[in-house]
Amino acid sequence: MSFENLVKDRHSAVNFIEDVEMTEDDFKNIFELTKTAPSAFNLQFAEYLVITDKEKKERVKELSYNQYKIHTASAVILVMGNKNSLEMSEVEKIYGPMKMLKMMDELEYEMVVETINRYSEGLKANPSEFDVELARNVGLHAMLFMLSAKHYGFDTCPMHVHNVEEVRKEFNIPQHIEPIMMITIGKSVDKVRARGYRKPVGEFVRFNGY
Amino acid sequence: MSFENLVKDRHSAVNFIEDVEMTEDDFKNIFELTKTAPSAFNLQFAEYLVITDKEKKERVKELSYNQYKIHTASAVILVMGNKNSLEMSEVEKIYGPMKMLKMMDELEYEMVVETINRYSEGLKANPSEFDVELARNVGLHAMLFMLSAKHYGFDTCPMHVHNVEEVRKEFNIPQHIEPIMMITIGKSVDKVRARGYRKPVGEFVRFNGY
Repeated sequence: MSFENLVKDRHSAVNFIEDVEMTEDDFKNIFELTKTAPSAFNLQFAEYLVITDKEKKERVKELSYNQYKIHTASAVILVMGNKNSLEMSEVEKIYGPMKMLKMMDELEYEMVVETINRYSEGLKANPSEFDVELARNVGLHAMLFMLSAKHYGFDTCPMHVHNVEEVRKEFNIPQHIEPIMMITIGKSVDKVRARGYRKPVGEFVRFNGY
Repeated sequence: MSFENLVKDRHSAVNFIEDVEMTEDDFKNIFELTKTAPSAFNLQFAEYLVITDKEKKERVKELSYNQYKIHTASAVILVMGNKNSLEMSEVEKIYGPMKMLKMMDELEYEMVVETINRYSEGLKANPSEFDVELARNVGLHAMLFMLSAKHYGFDTCPMHVHNVEEVRKEFNIPQHIEPIMMITIGKSVDKVRARGYRKPVGEFVRFNGY
């Protein structure tokens, strides 16, 4: 499908066809495209917990004001930000191979590590700015996930995470992993439906100043 | 171009070909696709300030540690979150037409307005959660912007906004509009280049629990 049609066809699903199963391979195809998303200093903050297990999915539903679409979705996915992405051991995992493959020389490597160090210290000193950074990066990633899902024939709906601490406990999510949003995925019941009203471009875009 | 090729071809541009001009129509085409992005309760928080004016663009460069790509980019774009999106007058602008067009009945309308009211009060009482909400929504929107730009033949690079208050002053950005990120756009100097290392899918995706 062309990009334009794919973008126009993507809608947030209101409800899903029950009992449509998605395999780990379905998800891997989607994630192979999703992983190309950009991130600050390429630190790749986004982490996903894909819940296909029916009982566990029902538990998420209970913790999410019993929203019915979680019951009929093939999976509910927690999209999270990994705070450890700022640790130098993680930074080296990403930049080490690039230095080894001569994609960057020693000097560039030193410069980028120094820049990331400053950036990392700034965020660690300012937890609410760090939360915003995770949300921004996860948002970029999650949009590419939803489009990639559509490309492979699956519909999605972005959702808020409710009762975060109970969700964390239920799935043993470590403290350094911050749940940011949730996505239900499956096959939409509605094949075609009118999109919610969107503001005209002139109402949210300005040129050269206010 | 197919979605898959478009995703694979999109890279953050390291530098841009100087003096490539983009017209307001170029941007309008991109934004017509971008505006389909989902947002919490369809409140459409994202706002864009497109800076094509050369002198003004240089001013952003000065305020952004003189990053050279801002000089060569066709435009630098501030991607922002509109805090007034939570105001009931804005909510009515979005849901009023849907009620009028019978896309929802009176009861559905009342229910959605009540839900948004609760959500809105929650965010207003918790400014740091509101900041996260804006970043998450703007992130989703900005990724669709960058892919749509690529679809129309333009390369992009997502960037941090530095010296936010000076930027705000320079462009008379009202207090209820929060700068969240910046995007440089134009034609990339590099036609093909190796993508920065990405973690394999197995390192950022888990199934059914930790």
